[in-house]
Amino acid sequence: MLASSIIVKKRDGGELADDEIHFMVDGFCSGNVADYQMSALTMAICLRGMTARETTTLTQAMLGSGDRLPKTADQDSDSGNNRRVRVDKHSTGGLGDKVSLILAPLLATCGVDVPMVSGRGLGLTGGTLDKLESIEGFQVEYSAEKTTELLKDVGACIITASDRIAPADRRLYALRDVTGTVESVPLITASILSKKLAASLDALVMDVKVGSGAFMKSEADAMELAKSIVSVGNAAGMPTTAILSDMDQPLGEAVGNAIEVNESIEVLQGKPGEIRELTIALCADVLVNCGQYDSQEIATKKLIEMLDSGQAMERFEKLVSRQSGKLSGPLPLAPATEITASTGGFVNRVDCQSIGEAIVSWGGGRRKAGDAIDHQVGIRVHHRIGDPVESGQTLLTIHSHPADAKDYATRLGDAIEVTEQAPPKRSLILSRLPA
Amino acid sequence: MLASSIIVKKRDGGELADDEIHFMVDGFCSGNVADYQMSALTMAICLRGMTARETTTLTQAMLGSGDRLPKTADQDSDSGNNRRVRVDKHSTGGLGDKVSLILAPLLATCGVDVPMVSGRGLGLTGGTLDKLESIEGFQVEYSAEKTTELLKDVGACIITASDRIAPADRRLYALRDVTGTVESVPLITASILSKKLAASLDALVMDVKVGSGAFMKSEADAMELAKSIVSVGNAAGMPTTAILSDMDQPLGEAVGNAIEVNESIEVLQGKPGEIRELTIALCADVLVNCGQYDSQEIATKKLIEMLDSGQAMERFEKLVSRQSGKLSGPLPLAPATEITASTGGFVNRVDCQSIGEAIVSWGGGRRKAGDAIDHQVGIRVHHRIGDPVESGQTLLTIHSHPADAKDYATRLGDAIEVTEQAPPKRSLILSRLPA
Repeated sequence: MLASSIIVKKRDGGELADDEIHFMVDGFCSGNVADYQMSALTMAICLRGMTARETTTLTQAMLGSGDRLPKTADQDSDSGNNRRVRVDKHSTGGLGDKVSLILAPLLATCGVDVPMVSGRGLGLTGGTLDKLESIEGFQVEYSAEKTTELLKDVGACIITASDRIAPADRRLYALRDVTGTVESVPLITASILSKKLAASLDALVMDVKVGSGAFMKSEADAMELAKSIVSVGNAAGMPTTAILSDMDQPLGEAVGNAIEVNESIEVLQGKPGEIRELTIALCADVLVNCGQYDSQEIATKKLIEMLDSGQAMERFEKLVSRQSGKLSGPLPLAPATEITASTGGFVNRVDCQSIGEAIVSWGGGRRKAGDAIDHQVGIRVHHRIGDPVESGQTLLTIHSHPADAKDYATRLGDAIEVTEQAPPKRSLILSRLPA
Repeated sequence: MLASSIIVKKRDGGELADDEIHFMVDGFCSGNVADYQMSALTMAICLRGMTARETTTLTQAMLGSGDRLPKTADQDSDSGNNRRVRVDKHSTGGLGDKVSLILAPLLATCGVDVPMVSGRGLGLTGGTLDKLESIEGFQVEYSAEKTTELLKDVGACIITASDRIAPADRRLYALRDVTGTVESVPLITASILSKKLAASLDALVMDVKVGSGAFMKSEADAMELAKSIVSVGNAAGMPTTAILSDMDQPLGEAVGNAIEVNESIEVLQGKPGEIRELTIALCADVLVNCGQYDSQEIATKKLIEMLDSGQAMERFEKLVSRQSGKLSGPLPLAPATEITASTGGFVNRVDCQSIGEAIVSWGGGRRKAGDAIDHQVGIRVHHRIGDPVESGQTLLTIHSHPADAKDYATRLGDAIEVTEQAPPKRSLILSRLPA
């Protein structure tokens, strides 16, 4: 088998055979296929696409390059045969998306394990690990054995991927990042699912974000990715569903790191609104899909109970403490400045790009991998699209170090557009897959 | 400027700016742009194409990566101002294409310089340098200074490209070869023309081969390449014309190395037929285009005179001798075996693929760069398509070492298809550009 012939086949729009895909991925890991051959293939995949079968094989080849987290026995069972049900959620990322912080402990209170492997932020969207590291002492690196212990103790953990999880994906992603081959539905699908499959999940729910604050700007693109992930996840033996959710404005009020932990705690303590709504929807989906509950209705009722009774918050505190974090009340933030409305009316548009860029430029996000993060930088967006505002009312509270953020008025003065007419109502949840 | 952003622009079908193309080519040479980024870009170019302007810039960027052969003063002129007119021909390669061996000395007898930089064979089509190295002692490596001396003495030389000629093309071609990105009109155009521009030519004529024995199988593909080369060559300041010629059968009778030198000498000694016809057409084109003669008619008359008077043969002998070759009569060939016609009729088809593969497999060509070549291996194809043959008449004379070529009947028994009906007449020259 010749790498160049396989590349030519894809370049000319052909469908690769299973052994050809394995040859390329295995060769890429062993060094028999060069980086420059793999990048040519990924560019051909960007432009020619892959069938669901090819994408499934690619996913499995990348999974096969590393280890799988072993299943764990149910503590309540006498024999080792009854395994704990294991689920997870994955989001394509968006501004203010702090769902993972609430969802992992909440699901654990419903009797399932959540071995959540998360990432760090790059560019405009933040990373769950960065947010949690706002908490003093919080650790994210754990071996497979330690991860199993965390799951036994807490039912959930939020950790970084080990070098042994889908190393082909790790190398391929680094290559795609510098060769203009990130934007490809089959490559994104394989990257996400190879890591989720490595966690030996019984069900996965995807949160595919759509809008100006997300990677996928249009609903059509987001739907294409969601369909691909649901189809390949199921084909690879992992029951998978997806929710398309709106990201034309931040999710919740807080955008940043410590500020998002604080808002997550508010939600865990009963704060209503769209974060709670989306978290419950994602949890209900995956709890039914893994067989833990018979219906969305039963699942939803249980989830509300766990939030309102304080059990989810208690589990979050246990997770933080078990991962060495020291949490006592709201985390400190950088000094506050406010931007107020110059006229009254209705919030018509929220400029996600400007908000995200301001946070990155003030040190709250990364321009390139490895950059340090100032966890105390953040922005509170006080209204959602459609909310009425009065002249002089606070639109944004900016937490930044004044020397860095002298430009806040230029950057963010127009970030919240207020118009006389109220814009049409919009839904948070746009679609579900399967419908 | 970011390599990945430039790659994304081409991936999404955009037109690259001049400075973006220079950034990639210069960076590729200096190491600032990695191999894996260049291969992703070349794949994007394969699938998205390039405009004539982009291709011209790419050509000039590759030219700029190396040196140019300085122009030489006219020996017959008193001042150094009158420069010798310099021309060349380039062929996309085909089975039995030995035109260069005749054309270079023939053009030199018409008072122009021909600094012909040629290649070695790989796969089915042979290389001019390999053919000439069938001649004992023939040298092909010369410095720029020595090349200038050869031109002053002979008016023509046939040599290998120095490391200083378009090094970007040398590196890029090696990369394209292993990343499935050879087949691209803009990339082929830039590769050919960057090297020809480095020779500071006053005119170039392209011989674009079409058919089963050539790289371009269809006339439409060949025309696309010819148009690109003519357009970019002229845009880069090098008057360029092209001829599309038939390669559904070998050019002439001889296919191999020494056997093609022998046939070239026959043509230089007056043998009529399609080699002579095509050589005269290419020479007349370039001699008019460089301004040496006023019309094709005058040029053709002169070329016939130079062939028939023996002056072209004399010049070939001078070229060989000046490049250290020792030539005395026909070169020796491997032992001969014949394949004869089992029925009479007309030659309907010549299987170029089988003939080329047989020669490579018997050692007369290369499977990979660096393979040694047995110059004495070759095949004589006795008839052209449309020729009448009688039962028992020789169709092919195979020159091979018997131990290697036991399989000749299996390989070549059906290489010449004889049918009852004569096939339609076909032209050797299919099109000319400009028409």
